[in-house]
Amino acid sequence: MNYLTYLPVFGKLPKEQQDALTNTAFIRKFSKSEILHNGSQDCTGLLLVISGQIRAFTISDDGREITLYRLFERDICLFSASCILNSIQFDITITAEKDTEVLVIPSEAYKKIMEVSAPLANYTNEVMASRFSDVMWLIDQVMWKSFDKRLADFLLNEASIEGTNTLKITHETIGKHLGNPREVVTRMLKYFVNEGLLTLSRGTIEITDEEGLQRMLD
Amino acid sequence: MNYLTYLPVFGKLPKEQQDALTNTAFIRKFSKSEILHNGSQDCTGLLLVISGQIRAFTISDDGREITLYRLFERDICLFSASCILNSIQFDITITAEKDTEVLVIPSEAYKKIMEVSAPLANYTNEVMASRFSDVMWLIDQVMWKSFDKRLADFLLNEASIEGTNTLKITHETIGKHLGNPREVVTRMLKYFVNEGLLTLSRGTIEITDEEGLQRMLD
Repeated sequence: MNYLTYLPVFGKLPKEQQDALTNTAFIRKFSKSEILHNGSQDCTGLLLVISGQIRAFTISDDGREITLYRLFERDICLFSASCILNSIQFDITITAEKDTEVLVIPSEAYKKIMEVSAPLANYTNEVMASRFSDVMWLIDQVMWKSFDKRLADFLLNEASIEGTNTLKITHETIGKHLGNPREVVTRMLKYFVNEGLLTLSRGTIEITDEEGLQRMLD
Repeated sequence: MNYLTYLPVFGKLPKEQQDALTNTAFIRKFSKSEILHNGSQDCTGLLLVISGQIRAFTISDDGREITLYRLFERDICLFSASCILNSIQFDITITAEKDTEVLVIPSEAYKKIMEVSAPLANYTNEVMASRFSDVMWLIDQVMWKSFDKRLADFLLNEASIEGTNTLKITHETIGKHLGNPREVVTRMLKYFVNEGLLTLSRGTIEITDEEGLQRMLD
């Protein structure tokens, strides 16, 4: 199985470029909580997630973290290979949230092809634009609305009112309470799920980490 | 004068691509405070700053603004042409901070060449990575650093851009740059006055202790 076929661009590359990538790429396994990439000092290579789940985050001087985005099966992580672009001047840390298997595409091999291949360069552009959009969404949420806090507050309040951590409430209804469109509620709930605070099932929100929600309000 | 030569990549393109860009690009003038681009509904084209100064920012639902980055002579604005990349899913507004002249490179002409040109696609990558770095810096500032530091940093930066320690800027405008209400800005400015760092008069902020402001950033 050549996992490189997970990349939508792979089939558009000529055979010699496909071979060059295939011959240098290798599989690595990481245990849950293991760090895959740490800041800009290492240029690990692009990471294509085969199975598991990884998280990209920044750390403040005093050790606080904020999640920038999460990647799942078939997603690719570009910033673990930040040396392929001169203009990337920020550090992120990437960690395995579950036992994770990745295909590592070494930076030099990728960069060499990207420099001459319009399809690969344009694919790289799209990946970066997609991560950029994630980060802009985060800015929007955290800076303006503090919607994360308002939603956490609402859920804790509901649980207290109902006397249970299993809430039967629709995203639509929450949106009406908080003055946000349903899609915004759904997106933030999914972010909470990824943070391990909730589980979602049809018509039900189960709070699994009440303390974690509480901490968001501090 | 072909302003496209401001793009470091221009000389690397074959003549027919250079001509295609040159023939479609045109100059536009904007007065101070005029809006150059507004959200994702219009795909204005790439904007190459010939003279003047532009500001890219996002706006919250309740009308607050925060500056994402500023561009000066020879800088290029990509997100005014967000339709060239499918994965860009956020809206920014771009405004002229001074009387500004830009070269508009229409999106379709640019995209058509980018799709087949590795140099142009890689150049686009570098521009995006550079703006991404600006936004990551902003996250760092806003999320982690306290407002006093951000304000000190902003004032020093303004003084450096304007080449003077006497800044003609309202508290309201500073608030828009930093994403804070005017009252918060006024309060912190008064704190700075008390610290002997500034003097305030109607519409003017005079930096009297530049080193003191600088020390706040350490």
